Amino acid sequence: MRDGGDIEALIQMMARLPGLGPRSARRAVLHMIRKRGLLLTPLAELMTRVARDARECLNCGNIGTQDICDICQDNRRNNGLLCVVEDVSDLWAMERSGVFKGRYHVLGGTLSALDQVGPEELRIPKLSARVDSEEITEVILALNATIDGQTTAHYIADQLEGRVTLTSLAQGVPIGGELDYLDEGTITAAMNARKPV
Amino acid sequence: MRDGGDIEALIQMMARLPGLGPRSARRAVLHMIRKRGLLLTPLAELMTRVARDARECLNCGNIGTQDICDICQDNRRNNGLLCVVEDVSDLWAMERSGVFKGRYHVLGGTLSALDQVGPEELRIPKLSARVDSEEITEVILALNATIDGQTTAHYIADQLEGRVTLTSLAQGVPIGGELDYLDEGTITAAMNARKPV
Repeated sequence: MRDGGDIEALIQMMARLPGLGPRSARRAVLHMIRKRGLLLTPLAELMTRVARDARECLNCGNIGTQDICDICQDNRRNNGLLCVVEDVSDLWAMERSGVFKGRYHVLGGTLSALDQVGPEELRIPKLSARVDSEEITEVILALNATIDGQTTAHYIADQLEGRVTLTSLAQGVPIGGELDYLDEGTITAAMNARKPV
Repeated sequence: MRDGGDIEALIQMMARLPGLGPRSARRAVLHMIRKRGLLLTPLAELMTRVARDARECLNCGNIGTQDICDICQDNRRNNGLLCVVEDVSDLWAMERSGVFKGRYHVLGGTLSALDQVGPEELRIPKLSARVDSEEITEVILALNATIDGQTTAHYIADQLEGRVTLTSLAQGVPIGGELDYLDEGTITAAMNARKPV
């Protein structure tokens, strides 16, 4: 009734984004209409361009706007280090930390017998090929500390064993973490990996 | 670093929407890119059209895509009843309830000495003109139960007194509300407005 057309359709489509519901989608759409020149028009233009240009990097699986992503093209990055992550969001999280200066390989998920995801469904054959063809000295398995993530890490470790140095992220108490709020698995891992002060 | 261009710009602009922060904006953008045909492309098209077409109804201040909004154009609605609200979002909330079949007048805010908002900054002169020119029998003041909202309601009541029947929304216990969680003002209002069962 209020506006049968585009505004209502925009609200309903915005409400399908993760993190937004019907209420926040309405608020966001009103806000965008009020800030048309600052927000709605630029957003429309950016979305049009990203819808046209976004693609997976043919080399590592990162999402960018070129066939080979910025990171793979960046000559200042260390070619010898390859960080294997499950998802593009993990790659982005790693980049925000700024700690890693090598290159990435995005698997696109984890192995899962239940969901019938085998190595061929992921970017695992490509990973193996990169280890053979690029001058990689160390592969860092930065998979999530979930059962599926660790299963996948073990599978990859089996595949690459003897061909390259394999490491994984340290497990322990997160910075700012309080023991009282940590699960037993994390405390056990942190205790087993304890270091001299 | 991850993508200096449009994807990063899209994330940063999405993060400026109410209800989204940097983290949820990243999740939303990744989700949109993955659902390009279902989500990103239609969103871009809708936003482009809404940015071009959205406007305030010249009569009531509702936001729509025509000079006179759907509600003002709808002949089935009761011309005699006029519901005065602060904001378009209040109008939308009222429409969702489906209880009101008259027309609206959106003030565009409340009077505020602090923010130097006087009657001329709101749609109050236009309200007065509508009461004179349209066949309005009752004006329902559906302003928020805040100090500014009630101050504005009093001002409008003063202006329109004697020219039209004035009513306001009932105050009381919200449906599903538990007394234990209600503020004293609401309980007082509900007690004072108590009705025979």
